[in-house]
Amino acid sequence: MSAEGWVAVVGTGPAGPEWLTPEVADILERATDLVGYGPYLERVAGDRQRRHASDNREELDRAGHALDLAAAGKRVAVVSGGDPGVFAMGAAVLEALDRDAEGRWREVAVTVHPGVSALQAAAARLGAPLGNDFCAISLSDNLKPWSLVERRVRLAAEAELVMALYNPASRARPWQLGRVLEVIGEVHPAETPVIFATAAGRGDQERLTITTLGEADSARADMRTLVLVGVPATRVLRRGDGSSLVYTPRHCEGG
Amino acid sequence: MSAEGWVAVVGTGPAGPEWLTPEVADILERATDLVGYGPYLERVAGDRQRRHASDNREELDRAGHALDLAAAGKRVAVVSGGDPGVFAMGAAVLEALDRDAEGRWREVAVTVHPGVSALQAAAARLGAPLGNDFCAISLSDNLKPWSLVERRVRLAAEAELVMALYNPASRARPWQLGRVLEVIGEVHPAETPVIFATAAGRGDQERLTITTLGEADSARADMRTLVLVGVPATRVLRRGDGSSLVYTPRHCEGG
Repeated sequence: MSAEGWVAVVGTGPAGPEWLTPEVADILERATDLVGYGPYLERVAGDRQRRHASDNREELDRAGHALDLAAAGKRVAVVSGGDPGVFAMGAAVLEALDRDAEGRWREVAVTVHPGVSALQAAAARLGAPLGNDFCAISLSDNLKPWSLVERRVRLAAEAELVMALYNPASRARPWQLGRVLEVIGEVHPAETPVIFATAAGRGDQERLTITTLGEADSARADMRTLVLVGVPATRVLRRGDGSSLVYTPRHCEGG
Repeated sequence: MSAEGWVAVVGTGPAGPEWLTPEVADILERATDLVGYGPYLERVAGDRQRRHASDNREELDRAGHALDLAAAGKRVAVVSGGDPGVFAMGAAVLEALDRDAEGRWREVAVTVHPGVSALQAAAARLGAPLGNDFCAISLSDNLKPWSLVERRVRLAAEAELVMALYNPASRARPWQLGRVLEVIGEVHPAETPVIFATAAGRGDQERLTITTLGEADSARADMRTLVLVGVPATRVLRRGDGSSLVYTPRHCEGG
């Protein structure tokens, strides 16, 4: 990146500095301006950079704001939690560029830098539930019709992909997770393991629950929850200290 | 983790130290023994720890060796490239524990710690191709029948999931990727973007190719390649400097 303005889309990881990569730490250090959702900006130490906090919506406006700052010579870090390429600002910044019919951002250098995603953090805290083929599906119907969410989830279950369900619940989305677990339950047996991982890795806030498709209480999920739904082969392992770990074996039967 | 022996399953990220998390750096520092595939161990600096390098197969033996060392009081880091939970040692260590009928590893503390995965690194280098719902599927038929690979890929295409294809090719697997691209081509149009990312993030070794389903040359993939297959909505964006970025928009049409 040159001395001129740039936009670097980065992820802080889903919790504290222990999951922030050295690459991203360096970019944050060199940035003059930080753009992002307020709580993610709070994860960034230092007071030298100008902070442009916004709310969790209007990603395209936020992206355009970052590109405008860079076009004016600023070094801008667009800050996502987790990985910026997974349901985060990466696609929003590129979409803003794509819509730039007048070409005002044509010369702005834009790079994307990976981070630990929420799905990896949640999985690691309980073992290796994603140990075989898996998928990540957002249950938000802000940007796609609900019928498509249901269709994807059903096909993913038929494909025996372990599922990481993003945005499983919010005040505006009270019933969707229950419906999705029902759809999966039409494909997989009731004993299939399900994990609710709320605020994974965030100390006292963290809440991890291992349950099953048949017993999952979808009311346990909130905006900070990632839901991992296993496949019939997924196993729960009791340890000597009374704790449990979950994993999906690397090998598959049948075909 | 106590002063007694433990096993920590960690990932170094897919390239250099810029993607190694502080958490994993700290664990590697505290470990007495490192167990893993040779090239991954080479990414770990220092010469204090005893290194147990093995070849890329026999994950279960390697896991058992790590657990034996920990049972004898060693602090053991099992080292994967990328993320240990994504087609790596996480599931292998838990499977070894699960098979421990005599309970000799019952009291060994085992934790898993996330890292940047190859799919995130590859995606970030070219923008945000995983910007919408996606899946990760291994094309290796060492551990599952080939018919299941084809079935999963077809269902994933029908679900319009962007696909990250692991283990696309090797000397023992020369035709599989071609067949998989054919299967996807029966669902998606020939113009659908495809990325071949070889050694993403690894300096001079890195080779990134943006092509399409219709024109993809599967012979370009080797063991170090991750193949990302888009959906019809995935877009390629030309930048002012002649480079290209790829993204999958966050919104979807239809249903």
